[in-house]
Amino acid sequence: MFRVVRRTMSSKSSNPASLHNPYFSQGKSQKDVWSLINETAAAAQQELGRPIVNLGQGFFSYNPPDFALKAVNHTITTPQYNQYAHARGNPNLLESLSKVYTKDLGRPVPKEEIQITTGANEGLFSIFFGFLTAGDEVIVFEPFFDQYIPNVEMTGATVKYVQLKYPQKLDKENVTGDDWEVDWAGLEAAITPKTKLIVINTPHNPIGKVFNEKELHRIGQLCIDNNLILVSDEVYENLYYSPKFTRPATLSSLPELKDRTLTVGSAGKSFAATGWRIGWVQGPAELIKYVTAAHTRICFSTPAPLQQAVSEAFGEAEKNGYFELTRQQYLKKYEIFTKVFEELGLPYTKADGGYFLLVNLSKLKIAEDYEFPADILGRGTEDFKLAYWLIKEIGVVGIPPTEFVYPPHRAGNSLEKCLRFAVCKDDSVLEDAVERLRKLKNYF
Amino acid sequence: MFRVVRRTMSSKSSNPASLHNPYFSQGKSQKDVWSLINETAAAAQQELGRPIVNLGQGFFSYNPPDFALKAVNHTITTPQYNQYAHARGNPNLLESLSKVYTKDLGRPVPKEEIQITTGANEGLFSIFFGFLTAGDEVIVFEPFFDQYIPNVEMTGATVKYVQLKYPQKLDKENVTGDDWEVDWAGLEAAITPKTKLIVINTPHNPIGKVFNEKELHRIGQLCIDNNLILVSDEVYENLYYSPKFTRPATLSSLPELKDRTLTVGSAGKSFAATGWRIGWVQGPAELIKYVTAAHTRICFSTPAPLQQAVSEAFGEAEKNGYFELTRQQYLKKYEIFTKVFEELGLPYTKADGGYFLLVNLSKLKIAEDYEFPADILGRGTEDFKLAYWLIKEIGVVGIPPTEFVYPPHRAGNSLEKCLRFAVCKDDSVLEDAVERLRKLKNYF
Repeated sequence: MFRVVRRTMSSKSSNPASLHNPYFSQGKSQKDVWSLINETAAAAQQELGRPIVNLGQGFFSYNPPDFALKAVNHTITTPQYNQYAHARGNPNLLESLSKVYTKDLGRPVPKEEIQITTGANEGLFSIFFGFLTAGDEVIVFEPFFDQYIPNVEMTGATVKYVQLKYPQKLDKENVTGDDWEVDWAGLEAAITPKTKLIVINTPHNPIGKVFNEKELHRIGQLCIDNNLILVSDEVYENLYYSPKFTRPATLSSLPELKDRTLTVGSAGKSFAATGWRIGWVQGPAELIKYVTAAHTRICFSTPAPLQQAVSEAFGEAEKNGYFELTRQQYLKKYEIFTKVFEELGLPYTKADGGYFLLVNLSKLKIAEDYEFPADILGRGTEDFKLAYWLIKEIGVVGIPPTEFVYPPHRAGNSLEKCLRFAVCKDDSVLEDAVERLRKLKNYF
Repeated sequence: MFRVVRRTMSSKSSNPASLHNPYFSQGKSQKDVWSLINETAAAAQQELGRPIVNLGQGFFSYNPPDFALKAVNHTITTPQYNQYAHARGNPNLLESLSKVYTKDLGRPVPKEEIQITTGANEGLFSIFFGFLTAGDEVIVFEPFFDQYIPNVEMTGATVKYVQLKYPQKLDKENVTGDDWEVDWAGLEAAITPKTKLIVINTPHNPIGKVFNEKELHRIGQLCIDNNLILVSDEVYENLYYSPKFTRPATLSSLPELKDRTLTVGSAGKSFAATGWRIGWVQGPAELIKYVTAAHTRICFSTPAPLQQAVSEAFGEAEKNGYFELTRQQYLKKYEIFTKVFEELGLPYTKADGGYFLLVNLSKLKIAEDYEFPADILGRGTEDFKLAYWLIKEIGVVGIPPTEFVYPPHRAGNSLEKCLRFAVCKDDSVLEDAVERLRKLKNYF
């Protein structure tokens, strides 16, 4: 005879789906922004019978450099590179990154300070799991890269939101990253005895802001005074357009900050290979060991042939000046793409880094009786309507940035007037987008 | 002025490492079994000046089939396959797996029933996160694949252990997987109103047992009666040596079991590419959606070029009979490797599937004054001593199987007499091992 234990859950007692983690029921009636916008674009393409220019999601429209692809081709001929890599990472990639960071941080960075992860996303998730448990708190600046929030919450910890304050003059003129100021009073008030981490993203998605030395010093001092760890998501580290990219781990005015900074990097962003899922975390060995412990349990190890290929690609990039060349190419991409907004008088945030452009479209007049589908209206913010309209009428995809804001902060947020465009596309794609966007002048 | 919040944690208040997740402090003084055994082998190799035959970890000593490598080479020439795949998975791989499972499960298996994950490990982790929260319970059979335990515990859930009972006759003669019987009374007693999942591994690591129809029916009936989900880890699904491999999702005597079964698979195991980290979960769409939600947050998406390559490799494998050929090759590998244990009269469990062999070495007499290092003695079980001795004296690496047992169940466990060997190696490697193992007769 089988023992039958009756659950107290009553009506759902024979439905296995009722067993799911309740965290994943939240907002399940809403599609995520990527699905919603991509599906809208695909439907519009079908309906209009012509291609839509997709500047939505931040993937590259072109291939990784040849030297990276060639590295894959010869890597896979060696059996060991098709089998499990060490959980810490492929030793050659650790060595390559040790060299890169030794140069970039201006001090010896041994392999013990690096953990390879399955993309920067899993790197962040591993940091959060390595340090957070239920009841802990993490400070995140808003707007934020959307994955931070569930990644923190899955550990049972809570996110506290601090504003990068919308510069009101962006309604009228172009601004820079410096104009997006940290809400310092809000930051200081957000720190409690439960706070463990502050997360920054520099260069920042979606703003394009690079945190300046003064800001990093002030955030860093708060970390030191309150024994917090600074998580610096620097996945766009090789795409900066000011003369210098200052990292918290190199701050000359606050050298002890490096002892509590975990820096996150991404081969996907650095080598135009977002699908390879090779990322890493750099930091003090006594902190990295907890990232290693979490990563070992989450993914065990990171794709071996792609790790080896990235290790070789770093060597080639050093020799052929690839990153400098890429920065030049991105300056040109921004030049191509921002031209149309200059012409139209649509203000944007000048990107100091990364590959996004945040544009204020409030000048645009959409007919009051314009029909929006329920999915779009259901989001309750103007930027989703803007995005929908732009796809249908202009044939260009942008991302509504209120998605990067805590839901209760969305309605009435100045970001409702903006859209985010990705410029990590072939120049011809950007030129096509510019051509289409010129038609916006008929709607002012 | 910066606001300083003083933590109550006293002495550690300025040490960022003190902020770590306490879960990862447990057992931190002990090396994991893989590091300990691999480092022991490396040291012995250095010391003895000759190579050690490593039959420890379950990675292949040879390359994936040429058709899989060729698929990588042409896949990476297409930009889209180097960028983010959809979080659900590459559509071509979903299509390939839909075909494979439609054939293997004998019913239409649409793409909605499949989620691609970054290795089977992250697939299991995604299942656990999709369903478990603190206070939930999961039943795992002991011995178990070691990653299950932390993967469950990181969600806050608790593992309940149920024995696959050591067959006492294995001390004297060869046994089969069927001789490792489920502790049925223990299983029924372990189910409580908090239980959500039962995890099985078939073919089983480290035993080599394939659960038979009667066993699956009885476990499945308990799942149905108590509204549990059955997680069937079938990563060795293409390596079975009995005429037929029965899966819980195909049980004709209990067809409704498929509605609550999540099946886990692995391209790493199926295509000798453990380093590629391509796995998947198959199951009812209304359960898969929670696996998708968790996976999207954990890894976002799985390596894109390797997904596309695996999708093509499945097509080739179907055409050229690769899996049937592999099974024949593995029957030969077992024949080569088991010969020496027949000669020596060392009893083993005949593997019905997978690529491991569990051998009873209790006949072996190790000198009482043999010196073991502290690391080995610290484990407190005989199998760690056996493994150490075998590396040093015979030059062959095996894994101590008490590592696959809940720590309080280790001392005095019959598995202390055994070692696990991996046969997923070139035939010449196995022949070399056999040659060395013949010398064991001098130690009886």
